[in-house]
Amino acid sequence: MNFIGRFAVVFALNFFLSGEAICQDVRWNEIENGIWKASVGEPEDISLLKAADIQPKKEALQRLPKADFPLLKSDIKAEVIDGKTYLRFPLSREEQLFGLGLNFKTVHQRGRIMQLHVDHYGGKDDGRTHAPVPFYVSSKGYGVLIDAARYVTVYAGTGVRVDAKDKPIVRDRNTDKNWNSRPYSDAVEILVPTTGTDIYVYGGNSPMEAVQRYNLYNGGGYIPPKWGLGFTQRVPTLYSQDDIIKEAEEFELHDFPLDFIGVEPGWHSMSYPCTFEWDTTRFPQPEKFNSDLMAMGIRTNLWLNPYISPVGSLYPKIKPLSGSHTVWNGIVPDLMLPEARKILKTHFLENHLNIGVSGYKIDEVDGYDFWVWPDVAKFPSGYSGEQMRQVYGLLIQDMTAKWFREKNQRTYGLVRASNAGASSMPYVIYNDYYSHKDFITALINSSFIGVLWTPEVRASKTAEEWLRRMQSVCFSPMAMLNAWADGTKPWTFPEVETAVRDVANLRMQLLPYIYSTFSQYRFEGLPPFRAMNLVDGFSFDATVTEGALDSTDNPYKVAVKSEIKDQYMMGDNILVAPMFAGENERKVILPAGKWYDFYDGTYVGENEIISVTPGLEKIPLFVKDGGIIPMRPVQRQAPRPDEKVDLILRHYGESEGSFVLYDDDGVSFDFEKGAYSKVDIIVKKDKKGSLKGTISKPEKGKPFGYNKKVNWEFMTK
Amino acid sequence: MNFIGRFAVVFALNFFLSGEAICQDVRWNEIENGIWKASVGEPEDISLLKAADIQPKKEALQRLPKADFPLLKSDIKAEVIDGKTYLRFPLSREEQLFGLGLNFKTVHQRGRIMQLHVDHYGGKDDGRTHAPVPFYVSSKGYGVLIDAARYVTVYAGTGVRVDAKDKPIVRDRNTDKNWNSRPYSDAVEILVPTTGTDIYVYGGNSPMEAVQRYNLYNGGGYIPPKWGLGFTQRVPTLYSQDDIIKEAEEFELHDFPLDFIGVEPGWHSMSYPCTFEWDTTRFPQPEKFNSDLMAMGIRTNLWLNPYISPVGSLYPKIKPLSGSHTVWNGIVPDLMLPEARKILKTHFLENHLNIGVSGYKIDEVDGYDFWVWPDVAKFPSGYSGEQMRQVYGLLIQDMTAKWFREKNQRTYGLVRASNAGASSMPYVIYNDYYSHKDFITALINSSFIGVLWTPEVRASKTAEEWLRRMQSVCFSPMAMLNAWADGTKPWTFPEVETAVRDVANLRMQLLPYIYSTFSQYRFEGLPPFRAMNLVDGFSFDATVTEGALDSTDNPYKVAVKSEIKDQYMMGDNILVAPMFAGENERKVILPAGKWYDFYDGTYVGENEIISVTPGLEKIPLFVKDGGIIPMRPVQRQAPRPDEKVDLILRHYGESEGSFVLYDDDGVSFDFEKGAYSKVDIIVKKDKKGSLKGTISKPEKGKPFGYNKKVNWEFMTK
Repeated sequence: MNFIGRFAVVFALNFFLSGEAICQDVRWNEIENGIWKASVGEPEDISLLKAADIQPKKEALQRLPKADFPLLKSDIKAEVIDGKTYLRFPLSREEQLFGLGLNFKTVHQRGRIMQLHVDHYGGKDDGRTHAPVPFYVSSKGYGVLIDAARYVTVYAGTGVRVDAKDKPIVRDRNTDKNWNSRPYSDAVEILVPTTGTDIYVYGGNSPMEAVQRYNLYNGGGYIPPKWGLGFTQRVPTLYSQDDIIKEAEEFELHDFPLDFIGVEPGWHSMSYPCTFEWDTTRFPQPEKFNSDLMAMGIRTNLWLNPYISPVGSLYPKIKPLSGSHTVWNGIVPDLMLPEARKILKTHFLENHLNIGVSGYKIDEVDGYDFWVWPDVAKFPSGYSGEQMRQVYGLLIQDMTAKWFREKNQRTYGLVRASNAGASSMPYVIYNDYYSHKDFITALINSSFIGVLWTPEVRASKTAEEWLRRMQSVCFSPMAMLNAWADGTKPWTFPEVETAVRDVANLRMQLLPYIYSTFSQYRFEGLPPFRAMNLVDGFSFDATVTEGALDSTDNPYKVAVKSEIKDQYMMGDNILVAPMFAGENERKVILPAGKWYDFYDGTYVGENEIISVTPGLEKIPLFVKDGGIIPMRPVQRQAPRPDEKVDLILRHYGESEGSFVLYDDDGVSFDFEKGAYSKVDIIVKKDKKGSLKGTISKPEKGKPFGYNKKVNWEFMTK
Repeated sequence: MNFIGRFAVVFALNFFLSGEAICQDVRWNEIENGIWKASVGEPEDISLLKAADIQPKKEALQRLPKADFPLLKSDIKAEVIDGKTYLRFPLSREEQLFGLGLNFKTVHQRGRIMQLHVDHYGGKDDGRTHAPVPFYVSSKGYGVLIDAARYVTVYAGTGVRVDAKDKPIVRDRNTDKNWNSRPYSDAVEILVPTTGTDIYVYGGNSPMEAVQRYNLYNGGGYIPPKWGLGFTQRVPTLYSQDDIIKEAEEFELHDFPLDFIGVEPGWHSMSYPCTFEWDTTRFPQPEKFNSDLMAMGIRTNLWLNPYISPVGSLYPKIKPLSGSHTVWNGIVPDLMLPEARKILKTHFLENHLNIGVSGYKIDEVDGYDFWVWPDVAKFPSGYSGEQMRQVYGLLIQDMTAKWFREKNQRTYGLVRASNAGASSMPYVIYNDYYSHKDFITALINSSFIGVLWTPEVRASKTAEEWLRRMQSVCFSPMAMLNAWADGTKPWTFPEVETAVRDVANLRMQLLPYIYSTFSQYRFEGLPPFRAMNLVDGFSFDATVTEGALDSTDNPYKVAVKSEIKDQYMMGDNILVAPMFAGENERKVILPAGKWYDFYDGTYVGENEIISVTPGLEKIPLFVKDGGIIPMRPVQRQAPRPDEKVDLILRHYGESEGSFVLYDDDGVSFDFEKGAYSKVDIIVKKDKKGSLKGTISKPEKGKPFGYNKKVNWEFMTK
């Protein structure tokens, strides 16, 4: 009854008939500095990275330190049984795992079981989410990606094999108080429900370095156009072009930042399913509408979902190239077919991009299960409903991103489904879920998996909640108010209008810092918004406390893990600790090194847990010792390509420091051909020990949107 | 780009290499009266019905009316693509669907998407449940079973094909108020993630008749031993044999019914993982323990989960016959191997059955995912973790049931995982979830899918809740208090002790009725506890009310369906409408025909919705016009085989009626060889129009446990 033997026999007899079993050594090839790839079984000709059409940033990868293969190769196992791929990676005792999709409630993933499945987030970190990226990062400084366009099940340190190398202790639950409902597991085990897959290991000297490799291999992060980092308002769904112009004017009247406006379903002549054609009653002159807005410095972002209405002109063209099932009565274009993409491109360029539309919000490519095709759907390209579901968000991001790239125009939009390989995509993920705290946890988790996430604001029960949400969203990749259903405005709660404006203005002032931070994403693979667990010197361990027996709520005495999921870094220097409605005080965990209050430069602590009571008007922000924050004066909009603004350079703490200020034209891809500046801002102590700042000159002929005059602010007196 | 063409080519080229695609007609064979079977692709050699080892009740099936194939055969589609089976069954406009697993929140399943997956119920009706039976019943009077030991995904009228026969109306969400987020679907679509499956269609003239066929094909329902229908108490986990004897004595002191006692993990010398050997400190004389209890008329039921501890004697014998992964450090016997079953049988008979143990509670064969093997587990029989997970509950029910059957001894126990084919299993499902209302919905749903469910009582916050739960559990397949963790007793809330005893005594009085009802399950396939939707004359339609738009909670304006999920029938005549804590009043929907209050015989209504305010002491019960309820005097225990009890025959309403009173020895399988009585109880009007009752004589030499004296009670004056 030796089943290894049995499979070997089966293999010999049946493999070519039924693909029943292959056991194999995993052969690793170092394909880039510190990145290893292996193919197990017969990988499919569709995958996540293939769908994302990644273009690795080889030179940037070369600049990273060397890394050794992080695991004992013989501990990595792979076999293909009955058309399914079984994988195993080793874990050591103290190792922590992060990533495995855009989770909303947990940061630590060791000990979890997840079926990674593109879907609307349903309230549980079970793998069903908007970006179920099959990539995990270890606290030991490496990452693992399963590049399969399938519903991959991951047992992240849960399964215990009879032949485990490092076995858990056997205890008697009857009498042993140390009995544990979750015995120790020494492996990550993964089931890929297909005949093979490519797998990648990303080495590193830290978890962050593994993430950098992951992002750079995916093409590096995206640098949004500058306007994309300004404030955006999404208007009620049936607003006409006149209503929207009025809305923009109202923002001027309220002196509130506004860089782009989101136009919701009402722009379509029919929505759910959509025509992708302007409704002539609400938008009689779409080109004029776009140019009128542009004259006010405001871009247009169009909502869509990709399900095509029978009444539009696209329908007959796309029908032969669409899937077997409709979504909301719309046909689903098969984006694996070049012909389908071509037809869409022609239509979208002519009707949108060429008349001034600057981006899209791509809704409902995630699921909720009901609002996507079923797994039994068939597509003319031959790919299955499951495969298409896992990659559709990537395909549509890739397709639309390329349209803008061909126009040498950066876009920045929203998408509701993504997956591995998306680092370079010009899209931010959002959803209909609305827990403020969980939104922050998602923002933290986005940093492990190469996606961007916005904790969008829609509505609130109280002015306090409104302000707290507005404060958070201003410290995220997209500062957005989504009023499609609620008709809210930033000033909806007059009692906090000033405080809301203040935080929006602060974001606008921080654009030089934020833009430089995004350039790190592009050039070094460093996520702009970062989990504390990716930060050097952050050493808070998830503590496990014993569970209490309860016959109903906790019959297995499951232990409770505490983890840090409500604070994060924006770039290298700013620690953000959002406040939530109903809270006057919160704890902040400060990594090693001294930390200073952003607002007044006072010292707050180092390598410790502090309590802060910031008042309603402020979101707690802390800067590390020596941290330099380039800012600009308050302005309602991001700078235009030809605009020069003053530079305010803040320094915090007592230490020397440096910062690389990045700039380019803010709108095109010319920076990829070298049309950008990197300027060194350096603070050193003089002989007397006083801090002095210098700033290098930008290279001649390169875009640099700052005046020569620099205002230095040494915040810590 | 014709993909049918593409698959045809692929088929020709690749099928024998990779099994990529087979399209086929579905060929139906009528295998029993009104039951059709078809094989699609290449069904696996493991299936749900095979694991359950069903023995169809052919004669009983013959006695059912003839039925036509209920669907247009050409509307049923099947194909095998890339090793997965795609199925489609048609739906008509007004059709409602029931079943699809042991659901806890919904009864109507049309419009739902479920991945049927053995698991602990996690709070959502998404297919993960203790009995994810891939069987649905249509309101049109037929049933469909997918007999696959796989995680089957069912789109129960959700997917809309481009080529649908009956298409939904296309509406513009922008402007059309009748726009619907869930367009009409004319089909059930099913994905079976393997190369083929057997499928069954059960015809009928009513939904109940389809259910009857399903149950009878599975071997008919189970008739518990009489003691199994008495009250059962599960004692705290570390109780010793002396503690348990004392507990039994306390029940006597409190004059509370008690027929069997559940012994929780402490009887094992080690638990989680288990040894299946008595702990000699707590149970120094297990045989004496069993016989001492038996002398008090009390049976023993032993808790177990099937994960074998390294310290027990079974371990070395089972190890070569167990799976690759441990559960709580215990090895998992491969129950597909006859050798493994044999070793277990020897051990269990010697240590338990042969010293008087009467049954088992089989825990944790469902999952919670963590507390079962992962899908990457391998078993020496060659079956996968997924397959084993779907059938393990069936295998262990079948194995243990056969041990008792071979001893000609009926057992009645508890199990936490089941599946299709379980109708004849001597097990009742339970779980750790604890919503009283949802427990009732599960009881209702159990009737569609051939399983039994108990809304067990464990603990309560208030005396009111305690009483309400005790009332419900007394109108279920197993009247159980499970005090393993809480140490509760029926008299834990003294202020309701009398009312709790009253309802337990009422159950004991109703045993003749309940036992006869279970005999219908066995001989006619009629579930003992029945959804209203299976009852003739019940015509309450699920009404759909328009949803309200909410950007967060209901962005798609999903309509809300109201359904009846809190009342049910116990047998032919008694309608049970449980009360829940905090409620003084409830609505009851009365089917067509007149209905009467169980307690006082007064008329309450017909074919209407009534409100009742029964007070705390009573659970609302209603009897239909002409209904006869055989009862017996109050007794603490079920009758022994040689015991004769008085018969109380109640009649309700103004109409004539009849009832078949079933009896047998109550403990053995001799009834299967004809050793039973069926006695006709008939109430007719005499010439003056007065109701008179008669009872036929039992056949000579057949067991009949009632005295000749019969007390007639005409309840309606």
